[in-house]
Amino acid sequence: MRFDTNGLEILDREECLALMASVPVGRVVFTDRALPAIQPVNFVLHGDDVIIATSAGSKLAAATAGTIVAFEADAFDAGDEAGWSVTVVGQARAVRDSGELRRLSLLPLDPWIPGRHDHFIRIRSDVISGRRIHPTMVEARP
Amino acid sequence: MRFDTNGLEILDREECLALMASVPVGRVVFTDRALPAIQPVNFVLHGDDVIIATSAGSKLAAATAGTIVAFEADAFDAGDEAGWSVTVVGQARAVRDSGELRRLSLLPLDPWIPGRHDHFIRIRSDVISGRRIHPTMVEARP
Repeated sequence: MRFDTNGLEILDREECLALMASVPVGRVVFTDRALPAIQPVNFVLHGDDVIIATSAGSKLAAATAGTIVAFEADAFDAGDEAGWSVTVVGQARAVRDSGELRRLSLLPLDPWIPGRHDHFIRIRSDVISGRRIHPTMVEARP
Repeated sequence: MRFDTNGLEILDREECLALMASVPVGRVVFTDRALPAIQPVNFVLHGDDVIIATSAGSKLAAATAGTIVAFEADAFDAGDEAGWSVTVVGQARAVRDSGELRRLSLLPLDPWIPGRHDHFIRIRSDVISGRRIHPTMVEARP
């Protein structure tokens, strides 16, 4: 295992992808009118890419069209004070190709929020980084 | 209850703060060398402000010095397909005043990662928005 200067384990690309695949919700990080913005979304991985589905007119669709975004997924356990976080940074694009749309519509991606979700956004995982925080060795208490 | 166009419940400021106070980890959203960036951190609320602690030389300390950041906290339940998310957007600043530092050092803020955390960052909750996604009415299955 490799650790960073904060004492967190550095996860390799394969571990990052496996951990991301284990959770149904991640967070898209983008810029909204020059301000930092974040929105939780359901997602699936397709190859190494992050796939999300929204409606064509949504703020998320507008904000991610052809831009570089970050996408984060994590899981933490308050009891253990442990967990992991993975962040992808890469180009987001609206999927327009009908063959690609057909393939993506077959993925097990079922957004929890109601409404139409026929607008697919694909985030290329150009850079993936992940960290794991291990449970602290807590001293035995009397 | 009020709902947005996506069918999500709109949470008022008080609910947002109460929900944030119920979780130990949130995510700072900022810009790192012109790219969107996100980092999970332990935090506490102090009044309506988000307080995080890091080391003076950290990337987070540099990236948040005097800038507008977003801060997000959430909790989702994959079984229920439900949960909530709250986002604060506001000015972040390094706390320098010795009286304020003393007060903040008494808060129940215990970062899970090892090392020194004597550099406090205070994020003013200029704008708070929150959404709750209610469990879907799932049809009875045979």
